[in-house]
Amino acid sequence: MLLLRAIAGRRLPPLPLPRRGCSRFPPGSPVAGRPRGAAPVLAALLGLGAVLAYGERRRRGAQAAQATPVPQYPLYTREEVGRHRSPQDRVWVTHGTEVFDVTDFVELHPGGADKLLLAAGGALEPFWALYAVHNQPHVLELLREYKVGELSPEEAALAPDAAQDPFAGDPPRHPGLRVNSQKPFNAEPPAELLAERFLTPNELFFTRNHLPVPAVDPGSYQLRVEGPGGRALSLSLTELRSRFPKHEVTATLQCAGNRRAEMSRVRPVKGLAWDIGAISTARWGGVRLRDVLLHAGFEEEREGEWHVCFEGLDTDAGGAPYGASIPYSRAVSPAADVLLAYEMNGEELPRDHGFPLRVVVPGVVGARSVKWLQRVAVSPAESPSHWQRNDYKGFSPCVDWDTVDYSTAPAIQELPVQSAITHPRPGEAVPAGELTVKGYAWSGGGREVVRVDVSLDGGRTWCVARLAGERSVPGRAWAWALWELQAPVAAGAELEIVCKAVDGSYNVQPDTVAPIWNLRGVLSNAWHRVRVTVSR
Amino acid sequence: MLLLRAIAGRRLPPLPLPRRGCSRFPPGSPVAGRPRGAAPVLAALLGLGAVLAYGERRRRGAQAAQATPVPQYPLYTREEVGRHRSPQDRVWVTHGTEVFDVTDFVELHPGGADKLLLAAGGALEPFWALYAVHNQPHVLELLREYKVGELSPEEAALAPDAAQDPFAGDPPRHPGLRVNSQKPFNAEPPAELLAERFLTPNELFFTRNHLPVPAVDPGSYQLRVEGPGGRALSLSLTELRSRFPKHEVTATLQCAGNRRAEMSRVRPVKGLAWDIGAISTARWGGVRLRDVLLHAGFEEEREGEWHVCFEGLDTDAGGAPYGASIPYSRAVSPAADVLLAYEMNGEELPRDHGFPLRVVVPGVVGARSVKWLQRVAVSPAESPSHWQRNDYKGFSPCVDWDTVDYSTAPAIQELPVQSAITHPRPGEAVPAGELTVKGYAWSGGGREVVRVDVSLDGGRTWCVARLAGERSVPGRAWAWALWELQAPVAAGAELEIVCKAVDGSYNVQPDTVAPIWNLRGVLSNAWHRVRVTVSR
Repeated sequence: MLLLRAIAGRRLPPLPLPRRGCSRFPPGSPVAGRPRGAAPVLAALLGLGAVLAYGERRRRGAQAAQATPVPQYPLYTREEVGRHRSPQDRVWVTHGTEVFDVTDFVELHPGGADKLLLAAGGALEPFWALYAVHNQPHVLELLREYKVGELSPEEAALAPDAAQDPFAGDPPRHPGLRVNSQKPFNAEPPAELLAERFLTPNELFFTRNHLPVPAVDPGSYQLRVEGPGGRALSLSLTELRSRFPKHEVTATLQCAGNRRAEMSRVRPVKGLAWDIGAISTARWGGVRLRDVLLHAGFEEEREGEWHVCFEGLDTDAGGAPYGASIPYSRAVSPAADVLLAYEMNGEELPRDHGFPLRVVVPGVVGARSVKWLQRVAVSPAESPSHWQRNDYKGFSPCVDWDTVDYSTAPAIQELPVQSAITHPRPGEAVPAGELTVKGYAWSGGGREVVRVDVSLDGGRTWCVARLAGERSVPGRAWAWALWELQAPVAAGAELEIVCKAVDGSYNVQPDTVAPIWNLRGVLSNAWHRVRVTVSR
Repeated sequence: MLLLRAIAGRRLPPLPLPRRGCSRFPPGSPVAGRPRGAAPVLAALLGLGAVLAYGERRRRGAQAAQATPVPQYPLYTREEVGRHRSPQDRVWVTHGTEVFDVTDFVELHPGGADKLLLAAGGALEPFWALYAVHNQPHVLELLREYKVGELSPEEAALAPDAAQDPFAGDPPRHPGLRVNSQKPFNAEPPAELLAERFLTPNELFFTRNHLPVPAVDPGSYQLRVEGPGGRALSLSLTELRSRFPKHEVTATLQCAGNRRAEMSRVRPVKGLAWDIGAISTARWGGVRLRDVLLHAGFEEEREGEWHVCFEGLDTDAGGAPYGASIPYSRAVSPAADVLLAYEMNGEELPRDHGFPLRVVVPGVVGARSVKWLQRVAVSPAESPSHWQRNDYKGFSPCVDWDTVDYSTAPAIQELPVQSAITHPRPGEAVPAGELTVKGYAWSGGGREVVRVDVSLDGGRTWCVARLAGERSVPGRAWAWALWELQAPVAAGAELEIVCKAVDGSYNVQPDTVAPIWNLRGVLSNAWHRVRVTVSR
């Protein structure tokens, strides 16, 4: 933790990049030294349709390549490329030492014309670095259809280097994490360690970043609070700590995509291939969001539907922050325990987990617990963020990328009941004799886990596991239950170990994955199944 | 409804039965003319063990009958029988014109010695009338082992008649109801009518009575409110209506045993064989429980776990009322909409539904919405009622009547997500062309139904049904959603129609029944499956 702490407040050296796009950071912003305009999200809105479009273009590109001999190209300087930044002036970009006129592709860009235009007149690499979907050979093939020139040799020497990587300022991570994506960083603790401790160590807590980690100066940090019905506030960390009582909550956070890998095995889905570890538990310390809102003059009850929107300091190329919202009623409810947290397991928040301040919404999908919080806004509408409106929603198995209409499904808030086996691991050979099966179980909305059933024969017969941990307040069971079952197993047996949990509303997990399959691979909470053999 | 209303306040004629047991009704009680001590629950606590015990005794009885010629018995008067009311004096009972000395059976009685002793010195019929488990030939065979005499011929003429039937005062019912048990009365609307109207007509609303329907005089009715932290109140109907604002809520009530028949097909369970109709929806009018509690001086928030206990005017032989409780936090929450209702769909509460006052706890199992409410008590413990402590709880499929420990499971409060197909019916032959599938969906805790998936091929492929009805306030969706799906079907096809619902917390129904099987047959919410053929 010492290393992380030393880095937490550090300013990155300023970069000599030209600034493009509309930065939302005013002078003196606590986001210091981030290459503005060089950390965009080229593919933030990229759906599966994009892959299909690329495939189609790729076939055409391959045909073109077969028909045409390799041409000689004119040379250009970066300054000349930089003059082509709109369809009127033509849209040019560079990749490596090559120059492309992508004007005719702008409207075809699956991620949206506006996203591609962010790169106009400059290098593609900083944009592509953000999303792995571009790091495929056929994308480059497609691009080559639009080649119009080469950078002059002296310009080529100035090709983008590591310093332009928007993720270069990300903090170091624990080598034990199982990494699903480096940029942005997404990683989970190894299943073997997951249920060993009730509180997940900070270094192993699953990390779900959507963008580069902002480097925040805690001294100049200000949280803005605003919206109709209250007075606008700007609060420093010192003010937050001194003006409001400290409140602590032990809460489990789970990513909507936890256990997505199992769903992908039914049919491919779009998203990171999380195993069972996109869930962790910490003791969070901070101030109640309720206290801050009441301090700002907002009332405890409001007529009609209101929302509390959060914005992070992590932003895309256009300066648009990560954002999400929760219903107003949850934000102000004393029983909902929504925190603005500055501590995690008794330590300062690590940078990967939102330093210096994050939201923690117990019982709700992790996506609403916005990190690096810069703004809290009371609003009559949900957050306009992509992640609130066009992601993190559940659909029927019959909905695909051609038919999906995000407006028809509610944003995921409370998550359904969940459980998984952390020991043994799939494919393991376990010794004959007494087998110990271990795992976790949790449910959203504060619904306590009341029972975990475990089967060793694929679900034909069941035993009741022993639940560990202290009893929580009914309706405010924010933390997972760890569970254990001992059972004798005979040498040579093939076991299909299955677990399923029941929550305080007697909700249960579905038997199988296929009927809950959805195109984004979220809400994967079917019975967890682990096949093992018993050694002879 | 006119007939029901005319009966609602009627006093039954007083009966000439001797009074036994400890009546909890003081003089002037609003329960008038009920045969006190003649409406007991012989088998209220009767478990499956009882059936097994009877089976064993039956075999022994049959052997005895084969070995012994029919004896001649001495004659007794009812007065003589009435002197044998304790083990010291011997315990005698009558059935028809026969007299039995059951002293040696008292401790063997599966329902408990105390329950059998309630009948000591008198006739068994009024007790047996309450629970159908006694209406089986082997029970009478068992009894005959203990025969010691006959009633004298003039006494036999005084054998129990219809007026002694504790259910004789029950109201008339709609002939359209599908009756699962006459005494106590339990009936559901026919599935075909269930989803035809968003509000279920009062006459067809499912009825779940545990005991005879009390006849209550609305003029002398008083509701008692008491408990530590508030002042004791006694409120007449007029006071309730005039002192508190009227509040209306549209809420669905569902019995914990809804769809039990499907669970019984996996393995037999104990309980009434409800089809899919132990669920109905009404517009309830009354006063908020919250308002009454605050009026009595109880505070909005209490430290620790508190409960609000309800008692009905429907009582067993010992005078113990039907009872249940809900958490205090729900009782006082303005968002939970808990009512003391005196109206149902704009009419006075029907007698079968709790005239003159009942609790309505939206989003919670019907068992907590106590009818014929006589007492509201704030308490640090849950209701001591059998139905709170030793019934209406869920268990693992591995728990049977030998291993069940009711203290290990929480009392059912919020119910899990549920749905069923009301049209077509199982085994129906539907015409080729456009098939309309209809049904209902609902979830507990105010979680709105966000989607219903329907399959015509047993769950391999799915369509999304159209939801009907107005949108509810998120988190306060107390009423069901009706849904419909049109699909073309080909002549000669065999269809397995399946439905499954998703609620606002993205909880789903389990695929199959066996893994949620439990010995009491509650919480039966697996996918609903209906097989039909398409006519040629």
